This record gives sequence, C-alpha cells and structure tokens, in this order.
Amino acid sequence: MTVRRLSVYTRCLLQLEEDGVKTISSQELADRFNLNSAQVRKDLAYFGEFGVRGIGYYVSGLKAELQRILGLDREWQVALVGFGNLGSALFHYKGFARQGFRISAVFDDDPAKCGKSVDGVSILPLRDLPRETKARNLQLAIVAVPAESAQLVIEKLAASGIKAILNFAPGRIKAGKDVRLKNVDLSIELETLSFYLAQGTR
Amino acid sequence: MTVRRLSVYTRCLLQLEEDGVKTISSQELADRFNLNSAQVRKDLAYFGEFGVRGIGYYVSGLKAELQRILGLDREWQVALVGFGNLGSALFHYKGFARQGFRISAVFDDDPAKCGKSVDGVSILPLRDLPRETKARNLQLAIVAVPAESAQLVIEKLAASGIKAILNFAPGRIKAGKDVRLKNVDLSIELETLSFYLAQGTR
Repeated sequence: MTVRRLSVYTRCLLQLEEDGVKTISSQELADRFNLNSAQVRKDLAYFGEFGVRGIGYYVSGLKAELQRILGLDREWQVALVGFGNLGSALFHYKGFARQGFRISAVFDDDPAKCGKSVDGVSILPLRDLPRETKARNLQLAIVAVPAESAQLVIEKLAASGIKAILNFAPGRIKAGKDVRLKNVDLSIELETLSFYLAQGTR
Repeated sequence: MTVRRLSVYTRCLLQLEEDGVKTISSQELADRFNLNSAQVRKDLAYFGEFGVRGIGYYVSGLKAELQRILGLDREWQVALVGFGNLGSALFHYKGFARQGFRISAVFDDDPAKCGKSVDGVSILPLRDLPRETKARNLQLAIVAVPAESAQLVIEKLAASGIKAILNFAPGRIKAGKDVRLKNVDLSIELETLSFYLAQGTR
C-alpha cells in the first residue's frame, strides 16, 4: 500500500469523526469520498482487527492506528530553510501544525531576514544548522530555496543529522543513502487536471 | 493506472532524453529512478507499441505519447486567484510554464495589489472573472486564497466556465459535478517522511 493512500484514509476518517460517524464500511467510505472501492477494501483488509462483520470499521480506532503508522501520534520538530515567498507561505500553512509538524527553526542567509523573527521563531543563518539541529531536536526539514542553492542546502542538512527532507526547489537534487529526500513537483498536480481536460477534447 | 504515475514516468523520460539515452527497458527505468519495477513493467505494457523486444522502450516516442495523454502537447491558459505569499510563489514557480501551464491572468481583490501587474500580467478584481475567462480562454485555475474565501472563489470560477481547479486553500471545499476540483494538501507530502522516520524508531 502506498503511504499516500494511508494519509488520504486518515483525512477521511478525521472528517467522519468530526461528523459524529462511529462506524463505516469500506464501500461507504469509498462512495462518500469518491475513492476506488476495490482499492479501499483491499487496503483496509490489512486492518482487519478494526473491522466488524456487518458493521464495518470503527472510525476512531482505525484513524488512531493509521496515525500511529504514519508517525502522527507525536510532534515532529521541523526546520524550514528559505524564507522567500514560498518559505513564508509554508511557514504560515495551517495544515502542518494540525498534523503535528512544528516548524521550530527557520534558516535564511539573506541579511534582510536573518536575525529577525516570525511568530516567535528566529530566522537564523545556515551556519547555525548543526547546533540548532541538536539543540532543538530537528528531525525533518522543508527546503524552499532557489534551485541553484538547493543541492548545497540539502548537503548541509544531511551533514547536520537531518534524516528526512521535503524539497520544493526544482531541478535534479540528490541526497545520500541515509537521508530520505522527497521532491515536491507542484506541476504534477496540474497535470491530473490537464489529463481530464484533454480527455474531454478528444 | 493513476495519472500521477504517468506524470512521474514523463519526468523520468525527459531526464533520459536530456542525457541522450535513446532506449530503456522497464527494469532499467525502475532501477534508475527508484521505482517499483513490477509496477513500471505493468504500466508500460499499455504502451507496447513503443517497446521493442530486447531493446526496451524508445525514450522520445514514449515520452511524446505520455505527454499527449496528459494534455501536455499544448499550452493551457491558467487563472491564478489570490496573490499573497503562496499565490506569488506559485506565479513565479518555474515548473508550471515548463509543462505548458501559462498563468495569463491573476485575480486578487486586495486594493493594495489590484490594478498592478507582475511580469506583464495584470492583477484584476474578481468581478472581471467571467469576462477574462472568455477573453483569455482560461481553462484551468489555481486557487491560493485564505480558507474562508475559497468556497466562494471556487463557485465564481465555476460560474465563469472554468472546468478544472487546483485548490491550495485548506478546509472542506466542494465544487459542482461539472468542475474537476483537486485539493492540494501539502502535509500529505510530509507524512510520507514521518512514516519512514516512525518506522525507524520502532
């Protein structure tokens, strides 16, 4: 099962919980959130213990189990590198904190930003990375620097002991084997839409 | 096959083309880009005509076919609604133009922005949406407004004739049946990383 689908199911279950739904079948879950019902059935079969024949799955129990698997049962300390437009937007993005991702350090070498603070979080120079990673127990990093700086920044993060990096900078970025690097390509999201529009014009 | 995987293969093929690679087997493609080789083999089997036994797939031919399917063989006119930090970052994001997505109109009702222009594109009030949609043949929209405005903006886009919307605003947003709405949840990307970190701590 892809991790992404686990995240999607977790969100659906959170919504159901908010709506006061106690149990749901895989078919209802699929119908309600426009998911592939065969896929949902197959995926949720892994979590058989949370399902009861004729009733379905216990929403809260299944949600808690998925959150535990996704590492969402704790708070993660996140470093944000790059505080331009994108970095600033990501810093203020509400969705991260809601899932337990706390941006507790911001790094940017721009003298116009460095030394300032945003919502109580200091903007620090990159040379402070090793010290801050230890001091703040930073485990994840989000990279929102220009393409030309990204490779160097990712090497510095790895050298500081960061084990997982979400990178928004375009281009071919590589990380060592002991670091999990995920490159976000926002145009992929648009392509699922152009795919559907293109189908309609054929 | 999910549309997302088509996008990923297209990017791999583009890289191979840049590197001067003419043909590639599904196994090599999987190895080179850390993909699931059984999945790649199964997916590419749909495109049998571009594969030659013992040689593999023709990189340029397969790439062009995938681009055609994804609607990347043309230029799309895109409306961007919301020109705050995120909107501004998305406007300057290089990846969109590279895939043929051209942000040709920006909308924001903030009097401090409205009437100005960025890189030759005017920032217009939302009331101009219907007229501009027709005049500029806008087909896709990217929504980067605060959560509380998103539902109304999406309804206005739909009423103007926009058929596909990429929404970055959080919350429960709905669109009518004739509009394809894709909600981007950036924390899902972080969750694939916390998943791996959490595995390591068990």
